[in-house]
Amino acid sequence: MAVYTDVAAEDLIVFLDDYDLGGLLSLKGIAEGVENSNYFVMTDAGPHILTLYEKRVNADDLPFFLGLMDHLAQRGVPCPTPIKDRNGTALKELNGRPAVLISFLNGVSPRRATVEHCAGVGRAMADLHLKGADFSIRRENSLSVAGWRELALGCHGQADEIEPGLCDEIAAEIALMETCWPHDLPAGVIHADLFCDNVFFEGNTLSGLIDFYFACNDLFAYDVAIALNAWCFESAKEFNVTKARALLHAYRQVRPFEAAEIEALPLLARGAALRFLLTRLFDWLNPVDGALVTPKNPHEYLSRMRFHRGVESAVAYGLLDT
Amino acid sequence: MAVYTDVAAEDLIVFLDDYDLGGLLSLKGIAEGVENSNYFVMTDAGPHILTLYEKRVNADDLPFFLGLMDHLAQRGVPCPTPIKDRNGTALKELNGRPAVLISFLNGVSPRRATVEHCAGVGRAMADLHLKGADFSIRRENSLSVAGWRELALGCHGQADEIEPGLCDEIAAEIALMETCWPHDLPAGVIHADLFCDNVFFEGNTLSGLIDFYFACNDLFAYDVAIALNAWCFESAKEFNVTKARALLHAYRQVRPFEAAEIEALPLLARGAALRFLLTRLFDWLNPVDGALVTPKNPHEYLSRMRFHRGVESAVAYGLLDT
Repeated sequence: MAVYTDVAAEDLIVFLDDYDLGGLLSLKGIAEGVENSNYFVMTDAGPHILTLYEKRVNADDLPFFLGLMDHLAQRGVPCPTPIKDRNGTALKELNGRPAVLISFLNGVSPRRATVEHCAGVGRAMADLHLKGADFSIRRENSLSVAGWRELALGCHGQADEIEPGLCDEIAAEIALMETCWPHDLPAGVIHADLFCDNVFFEGNTLSGLIDFYFACNDLFAYDVAIALNAWCFESAKEFNVTKARALLHAYRQVRPFEAAEIEALPLLARGAALRFLLTRLFDWLNPVDGALVTPKNPHEYLSRMRFHRGVESAVAYGLLDT
Repeated sequence: MAVYTDVAAEDLIVFLDDYDLGGLLSLKGIAEGVENSNYFVMTDAGPHILTLYEKRVNADDLPFFLGLMDHLAQRGVPCPTPIKDRNGTALKELNGRPAVLISFLNGVSPRRATVEHCAGVGRAMADLHLKGADFSIRRENSLSVAGWRELALGCHGQADEIEPGLCDEIAAEIALMETCWPHDLPAGVIHADLFCDNVFFEGNTLSGLIDFYFACNDLFAYDVAIALNAWCFESAKEFNVTKARALLHAYRQVRPFEAAEIEALPLLARGAALRFLLTRLFDWLNPVDGALVTPKNPHEYLSRMRFHRGVESAVAYGLLDT
């Protein structure tokens, strides 16, 4: 949780002069967001979120992220809409940081996802994949297979401090993924980080997808594989096939899978687990001095990677027609 | 800024079952509050604040704090109202902590107070002093003159690390205050921490007084003296007499000062500066491991204490009729 850049009410009042939102009624720093500073901003026109982008976000990527949210919101995806000022500009500057006002979405993130939540995520993800198709900007996925070797190098051979033999295990996984990773599956804009924190529900009804700051162009089925890891484990390694089936079936009702996607799913899920193992390992072994966020334990995704390594086909995920 | 106790949406949904507030629409941790965890909670009935009391707050004091807010809000003071559940209970428990839902107040805290803000604070403080008169619970002020010697002892003679000679200077101030402190001035319920962070404005109009967790029974003029320190300095030591005059004149229009209060004001202001010097010094010299809040530099209140030491009468604060 974090507010890295301080915003005084006086600064925001001047900032809001460029918008047609009326006066400022409330300003509160939000204790969430790892990469950015977020504020709850109530104006006469209603509630909004103010985001200031901190150094970990590449400012060159912001037109992609904000343009994508705008594109998707216009097409009915329940995601935050960047608010434009009177000149039609959404990306502004405040206190020396790139800054944007976005719409406020109702809903809360589940801590313990239900089967209905998983179905909602599958449906919304497929919808996002379809509706992102005609978005004009591209962004490569720096955290897909081509980036993993560098991430592993950043761990300086210290992975064995987490568990003896882990360095070799990771090296073997990366080598396998580099050889076997599919490159000709259906691809387009993916969210790439659709964890529980980033999905809002009202009851069991999905009401919002947020945090598009890992979104990129990559395989649709890789996004699905990330969601299987994020939504369908009860603990570090207990896989809940009922949730997986609900997620995958809801997805395919909106965007049917190709046979090759289903075939690749165990490898993609294993790769997705490796990707989160690597970033968590990196953050664990390279703690940032004065960081306001506690690094997440990498063990969870190590267990999940090993689970997927033992999966022979997508039958294990509840898809019986493979 | 801090959220010390984590609240999952699922936990809050169960908690809200006891209230007539409809469903949960949004839950966000707020990055403010030093002693407690605070959440922004949107329900069908509107926005609220959820506060969980952490270990630094004495649970025995909660009936005083919550009862006082209720008492004042009922009498028109713009302060948060504790929300009662269907059984009439405001003080509940959530995730092992005492917890309360309070009403949400519009307004923002100024970073740079204007003269109009200072007048608003004076007026609201006098109103609070009058309307607290018939509140039935008492709470002694553990951070008034009787508590300063112990606070100074907690600094373990290390004050000289801040500035050579500071230990002796503080000891002399405490000795003087113990001798000269007035005890027969008008007294009642005071806020005792009415800093800029704890006052909301919409434009120049005061819209809220918050954070009653230092409120207690003490001299009214001591509350005024705290506000002079908090609102009327431009920097560590530049005193703005225009702001002081506005604050004091607005106060006396609602509750006239007695002559003895005006006479005591320089000593009380010097004591108020000493009180904040001592608590900041204590927090500075006794940093809490893993604290999410950076201790405030004690120098600011050292300078202010020295300023007030040079004040001969309340004329220096803009009161010309002394």
